[in-house]
Parts: sequence; C-alpha cells; structure tokens
Amino acid sequence: MMNEKINLATALNSISDYWSPRPIARMNEYNVMLVKVQGTFVWHKHDATDDFFLVLKGALEIQMRDRTVTLGPGELFVVPKGVEHCPRAAEEAHILLIEPVGTVTTGDPHPTHS
Amino acid sequence: MMNEKINLATALNSISDYWSPRPIARMNEYNVMLVKVQGTFVWHKHDATDDFFLVLKGALEIQMRDRTVTLGPGELFVVPKGVEHCPRAAEEAHILLIEPVGTVTTGDPHPTHS
Repeated sequence: MMNEKINLATALNSISDYWSPRPIARMNEYNVMLVKVQGTFVWHKHDATDDFFLVLKGALEIQMRDRTVTLGPGELFVVPKGVEHCPRAAEEAHILLIEPVGTVTTGDPHPTHS
Repeated sequence: MMNEKINLATALNSISDYWSPRPIARMNEYNVMLVKVQGTFVWHKHDATDDFFLVLKGALEIQMRDRTVTLGPGELFVVPKGVEHCPRAAEEAHILLIEPVGTVTTGDPHPTHS
C-alpha cells in the first residue's frame, strides 16, 4: 500500500457535516480521523479502548461524570476506556481522533441515564 | 488513572535535545510522543509497526529508498511497517509521534547499507 501524506487543512475542507468522523490515515489497527463538531454529542463510553482527542481549531469540552476537560487548539486528551463522556462544542471545532478500526463512535450500549 | 490534558506547546518547552522523543500521553498500548529534530537521523525500519509522524512546526523530510515525503506543519504521514526510512530536518522541527509502547526509535537491526 502506497501511503500519501495528509494535509489536515485540506482534508478538513472536504468535511461539511458535524459529528461525522472521516478516516484520513491508518496506523496498524487504528484509524486516524478528522471530525468537525458543533453542539452536544451523546453520553457514551468505550469499554474496550481509550479515546484520543486532539483539538486543531476551536474549543472542545469533554464532559465526564465527575469533571469536564476543555481543550483548545494544540491540546489533547485521552479519555480512558470505560469512562463515560459527552463531547460538546459551543462553536464549530475541528478535532483529530484516533480509534481502533471498528470502534462505534457512540460507544457501547448507552447507560439509561443521560 | 487520572488523565490530564496536554498542551503541546507547553510540553515542547521542556524539550531541549534533538531526536529524543518524550511520551506525553498513552492510548491503549501506544505512546503519544513529542520530539524536536534537526539534522539527519539514521536509516531504520520497524518490522512490527507502522510509524506515525505529524509535523507541528518546521519541515520534516521522510526519506525512503524510493521517494521522499516532505511534511510541513499540519501534515502527517504513516510510514508502513517494514519500510526503511531516514527522517531529516534542515532546520529545527517539532513532531508528534505515535508508536506502540516498547518500540525502539532506531528500529530493528539496521541494514548494512546506509
């Protein structure tokens, strides 16, 4: 397979919808993805994997049950596996995500509370 | 384990030597690392893993035997496993790397040619 370099700004230009991660590269069994977000996602967790967020533009709040981490451009956070979280962006934000291939964005079956 | 957010610029401030990656976060069995580079590294390859490079500042040439990929800020490239490569930066560059925990930076035993 012939890998090509990826320009993040160019790849972001082709994304027009929110909360729809686009795979841009693959590393071993992981997808590197870009996503544009605005508004509030859903509470979810991943029992089998950590969840990697790097903010490229804007600000992302990663709400967890006991605290909220707010990321600006050039800031990253790894949500540990099994930790419920709900990403939120008051204004449009651009995020680089890394997840194992096959990870469901909304996580494992939702808890009944929200 | 209580993860904290990582500000890339702040973490880079604490690095003064070249070609010495610093782990800043862990995702599953992978280390997320920052490295400052200048000059030419060594030819090497990783038989067991792809090698992820994201340029944060400056320019990085990833020389391979059949081509060279040059990355600027906001550009990423994944060197496929088993592909010999030799990173080079004419001037100081800052890179985000992702590698499985335990990966040797200089790769598997070097080929005899260089």
